[in-house]
Parts: sequence; structure tokens; C-alpha cells
Amino acid sequence: MNQTDLVIKQATDSWNLYITRINKLLDTLTDEQLSKDIAPGRNSGMYLLGHLAAVNDAMLPLLGFGPLLHPEMEDIFVEKPDKAVELPASQTIREYWKQTCEALSNHFSKMTVDGWLSRHNSISETDFQKEPHRNKLNVLLNRTNHLSYHHGQLVLLGSAGSE
Amino acid sequence: MNQTDLVIKQATDSWNLYITRINKLLDTLTDEQLSKDIAPGRNSGMYLLGHLAAVNDAMLPLLGFGPLLHPEMEDIFVEKPDKAVELPASQTIREYWKQTCEALSNHFSKMTVDGWLSRHNSISETDFQKEPHRNKLNVLLNRTNHLSYHHGQLVLLGSAGSE
Repeated sequence: MNQTDLVIKQATDSWNLYITRINKLLDTLTDEQLSKDIAPGRNSGMYLLGHLAAVNDAMLPLLGFGPLLHPEMEDIFVEKPDKAVELPASQTIREYWKQTCEALSNHFSKMTVDGWLSRHNSISETDFQKEPHRNKLNVLLNRTNHLSYHHGQLVLLGSAGSE
Repeated sequence: MNQTDLVIKQATDSWNLYITRINKLLDTLTDEQLSKDIAPGRNSGMYLLGHLAAVNDAMLPLLGFGPLLHPEMEDIFVEKPDKAVELPASQTIREYWKQTCEALSNHFSKMTVDGWLSRHNSISETDFQKEPHRNKLNVLLNRTNHLSYHHGQLVLLGSAGSE
């Protein structure tokens, strides 16, 4: 394995690690726990899970993998804040999360180094020539941190002492 | 810039981005706000900031940059949970955070690609031969996610609607 292969593998391993951590947490949380707000007056766990799923979903077109799986979810979980509209059923949100994780995992497994270093779909060819760091890997690194950010909030729904 | 240089730069840029985001948040929080618990019965913001600083500090020996700046802080902010002992003064914790960020930033600016891909100090030469991903870059990726995780909690101390 050459240096670049190694580094890309580390970045995808890191993504998988944080997906696994969130899944472990989700397994311990009942729908009732997950429906609570993470702190008084803040987002509910269910909204945050739907938000993470919708952000996963949006990675599909952004990384050139295909269209959104559930375009109707973007409005609920990205455009609108929590409590603006009624959320879909708990089971639907949990399924949406699983489905988007699986879709990304399938696509990630087929990616090459050159693929990861190619431009993502919200930058033009011209701009990418000047800013080669605006590649698909950058989306992966940012979204991994985005998972961790909300993971740090979701743990607040579990028993104290585990944060 | 070759592919590996680019990827390493993206990883260090990502670290810097999340440090900047936390600093921006810290600028908006008074000591009083930062001393509050992030949610009922959870860690205080001041403990979390000290924890992030102590984890930064521990990166110095782990990455071979030198000894801990403040060994006495490890016990308070890593070994012990919040509320086990009285915390240092707010100003001391804020300074500790700045100091460790600056120390890391100085060392990071001198690192080469080969340096990032060399083993960190909690793996032996022999094990590293079998597990080359246990390099310094891995520490950076993990710690960047660790920053994001607690950043997601620290934002709960600010005004609602910003999480």
C-alpha cells in the first residue's frame, strides 16, 4: 500500500469508526429517549438522527454517487429547524439513517484514490484547478467531524457518566 | 504538491478549522456561561475546555514533540471526572487551552509527510510494522473528531438556535 492509499484508508476507517459509535449508541436508546431534547430548549435526538441521515443522503449527489434517496427529508431535517413540522415516525427515521449509511458504505468501497481526490459536485472545474483541496476527501473529513459533533450531543440522551 | 502532501494538508487544515470554531465560540462565552453544565447533571463547559487542553497537551509526548506542559492537569481533566476536585481558575483553563493549541500549531508547521506517517509513541516498532495506520496522522484525525465531539456539547452553553 502506498502512502496516499494508506492515508485515504485512514480517512475512510475514521468515518466507519464514528458511524459504528453512533450505531452502538442508537442500540442503547429507546425511541422514547431518542425523542427527547438533548438539553432544555434544544434539538431532539430524533431530529438530530434525521439530520445526520439527511446530510448522509446529500453526500450522494455531492460525491457523484447518484440522486438523493429521500428528497422530501431535506426540507424537514436540513432546511427547517426542529419543531417546525411534525417529524416522521421513529422507525422511519432510524431506517433512513441505516439506509443512507449503507448506500455511502457501498459507494465508498468502490472508490479509488484518484476518485477521492477528484472534485466534488459543488465546485466548478475552473475553481477546482485553483483549489484542489476541494475534493471528495474534504467532504468525507468534514462530514466525519459533523458526525462526531452531533454524536457528542446524542450521548446526552443516555445515562450520565458516558459522555 | 503531490497527492500525499495534499491529503496531509487537508487533515491539518481540518484540525485548524475546528480549533478556530472552538475559539470563536469561546470568545462569545463568559466565564459564568462556561462554568455551567452543558446539560443537567453533565460536565461543565470549564471542565470540557480543560479536558480538551489536557488532551492537546498529551499529544505532545504522543507525537514525540516533547514532555507535557502541565502534567498536573492530566489528573484533573483526564483521569478524574468533573466535580471530583475543584477546577483551576477560569483564566488558567483558558490560558492552558491557548498554550496547548499554540504548542501543537508550532510543531505541526514543521512536520513532513514522512513524519505524519511515522509511528506515534504508544505503539512499538514491531507492532507498527504490522499496523502502519497507527501513525501520527491517525492521532490527528482522531483528535480532530474529539474536538468536534465536545464542540457539539460546548455550543449548548450559548444561545439556543446556534447548535
